[in-house]
Amino acid sequence: MPDTFDVMEPRAALVAVARDFHARGWMAGTSGNLSVRHDADSFWITASGCPKGRLNEGDFVRVAIQGCAELERSAPQSRLSAESSIHCAVYQLFATAGACLHVHTVDATLVSQRAPAAATCLTLPPIEMLKGLDIWEQHPQVELALFENTLEVPRIASAIQQRFGAQPPRVPALLIRGHGVTVWGETLQQAYNRVEVIEFLLSYLART
Amino acid sequence: MPDTFDVMEPRAALVAVARDFHARGWMAGTSGNLSVRHDADSFWITASGCPKGRLNEGDFVRVAIQGCAELERSAPQSRLSAESSIHCAVYQLFATAGACLHVHTVDATLVSQRAPAAATCLTLPPIEMLKGLDIWEQHPQVELALFENTLEVPRIASAIQQRFGAQPPRVPALLIRGHGVTVWGETLQQAYNRVEVIEFLLSYLART
Amino acid sequence: MPDTFDVMEPRAALVAVARDFHARGWMAGTSGNLSVRHDADSFWITASGCPKGRLNEGDFVRVAIQGCAELERSAPQSRLSAESSIHCAVYQLFATAGACLHVHTVDATLVSQRAPAAATCLTLPPIEMLKGLDIWEQHPQVELALFENTLEVPRIASAIQQRFGAQPPRVPALLIRGHGVTVWGETLQQAYNRVEVIEFLLSYLART
Amino acid sequence: MPDTFDVMEPRAALVAVARDFHARGWMAGTSGNLSVRHDADSFWITASGCPKGRLNEGDFVRVAIQGCAELERSAPQSRLSAESSIHCAVYQLFATAGACLHVHTVDATLVSQRAPAAATCLTLPPIEMLKGLDIWEQHPQVELALFENTLEVPRIASAIQQRFGAQPPRVPALLIRGHGVTVWGETLQQAYNRVEVIEFLLSYLART
Repeated sequence: MPDTFDVMEPRAALVAVARDFHARGWMAGTSGNLSVRHDADSFWITASGCPKGRLNEGDFVRVAIQGCAELERSAPQSRLSAESSIHCAVYQLFATAGACLHVHTVDATLVSQRAPAAATCLTLPPIEMLKGLDIWEQHPQVELALFENTLEVPRIASAIQQRFGAQPPRVPALLIRGHGVTVWGETLQQAYNRVEVIEFLLSYLART
Repeated sequence: MPDTFDVMEPRAALVAVARDFHARGWMAGTSGNLSVRHDADSFWITASGCPKGRLNEGDFVRVAIQGCAELERSAPQSRLSAESSIHCAVYQLFATAGACLHVHTVDATLVSQRAPAAATCLTLPPIEMLKGLDIWEQHPQVELALFENTLEVPRIASAIQQRFGAQPPRVPALLIRGHGVTVWGETLQQAYNRVEVIEFLLSYLART
Repeated sequence: MPDTFDVMEPRAALVAVARDFHARGWMAGTSGNLSVRHDADSFWITASGCPKGRLNEGDFVRVAIQGCAELERSAPQSRLSAESSIHCAVYQLFATAGACLHVHTVDATLVSQRAPAAATCLTLPPIEMLKGLDIWEQHPQVELALFENTLEVPRIASAIQQRFGAQPPRVPALLIRGHGVTVWGETLQQAYNRVEVIEFLLSYLART
Repeated sequence: MPDTFDVMEPRAALVAVARDFHARGWMAGTSGNLSVRHDADSFWITASGCPKGRLNEGDFVRVAIQGCAELERSAPQSRLSAESSIHCAVYQLFATAGACLHVHTVDATLVSQRAPAAATCLTLPPIEMLKGLDIWEQHPQVELALFENTLEVPRIASAIQQRFGAQPPRVPALLIRGHGVTVWGETLQQAYNRVEVIEFLLSYLART
């Protein structure tokens, strides 16, 4: 069994993932946020305003999946991130979600901005890399959900719940226009793998 | 003599190559697979579904070159990858092949998708880097074999065996459309060097 | 609290930032310079002509904010950089500035050269990453100040003082044409975060 | 004084530079070669066919500047590289050259191939980064010498000697078409810095 992030203490694993993604340029400034499920009712998420390349295990807040209230801080000064509501939506929608990762890349942002104003999804390229999302088809036609960005993050979270509540997406990810992707998985390692896959696909799209 | 991967224990060396290629973005998600010949009849290959940046020496399966059957696992949970059949084809075709490496890059995928539908090869650019494939000519005209992708990997393996059995390729590599390159060499270090050379050439093509 | 650069000894922190930025290709050759405020009247800045990937704590000069004179050297051979005058302008203009970072990237240079000859600013893209500069608006229209380059660096510094003295910029950064960005913040970590944000935005612009 | 490569044992320093450049993708496969002057009459150069990311201090050959003959091997199996003749030309032409570095990048190759067939030089972009080559002018018009590639490396070396013997170049570097740059400096650190500067300039050109 590979030495996956899943064998590590969850917050230590998120610190490692944060430093990894930061080093790739996927978490510029203090952007992005990373969470892992703590139990049926809550998850740990990176605190607001932390530079992801310098994170430590105190930089987390535990959040209630229902209601999205702060339950606990790893360290006294850690504050709840406004984007926690999107993570709440994901954990509410998908009982099997064990981790949720949100990053910003130039490619994802470019691709999202180039999509027509009325678009609510992007067609992913029909390439082998789709197997990393468990898409096994000869001529796959697969869509990534696209949501509009707004300053009021809970409104984005509502839109996600509404659309995915009505019809679960085939791809365990979503793109917010001008903003970046949010990806989830049953475990942190699976979510991490899928972020790489989604970013590969969007990087491919950005260049076609 | 450089501290090549060839002086290392073969599976430890593959772990190092996997982490190296993963760090470059060449093995996103759990994509790609890497093998080294064990003896005349078998090779060790990365197990199915492993994230290549977190691999360890248990994440391998030993496979019979003839018949492509699993012979041994480095650790109990390691499972045979479907793409082993392509490695089998390479070791069957080329008695001197000591290692075989398959990676996915955005550039290789782009170049393969841009090729005309009827193309069965790509012309590599006539640049100095071709010497890394032992091409020493003033005006080289060299082709990289291109195969169609399909869900049934053994069919790709058959196509490879058929074409290369009839006429061995000049370049020790092949490209599967929408998928990525497979490269081999007499040793792991040689195969590793050639992956770099092929990816350089395809990155060049992707930008022309 | 994350393990920010702000908890380190200031020159040791600048060495770490220099190595980090150099590894990204943002400080090619001996380009760029980095400073932190020492007290109300002076700052430490990287010495002239140092390769930023090999810096050590002796490679600094302390400079008077008023008059821009050399006050002290970390090591005897460290010489004052000509670009110190731009840092002086920043510390004079902004009493809260605690650090000032100047780097060169291909993207920033490209974007600055593409701007019309008469342009005195660039419109930043209206994407989520702007929040990293504390821009919270639904449809942000934000400009990055653009200055002309000249061999006489003090003339650039004067132009900065004149324009920003009359009207402070909304974005804590400036771009010199064909040259690169200069970014400041209350602390070194904040300036570092903002460099990442500005470079993300310019990389986005370079590709649109 | 920064911890430059110049304070290291010369071959140990070349090993460090080789690993650094390899990690950037500038020495794919076994491409490129790096040398430092040993004394007035000879230099140490990387041996033929070594992967630069796995080099050690045995992987060098000492070569006579006049006549380009092998004088000594760091380890018995190290063989003289065919490209040593270009390094000989540089050390013969420039008595102050202390190091000479040759790398292959996709950007440099692209730019060289795009140049008109009759071109014998490329105009470098008039950007601030030129100061890294000691070009201090308000509107610099600076050229990088371009040479044709050929299988017979000594013929390239002759062309270099002929042209630069007649008129020394302003920029301490040359580009071979379809091949890559060769850069020199008084010390290894200076040559290393200049490689970064030249590659920055060519990367800029590749994108305009």
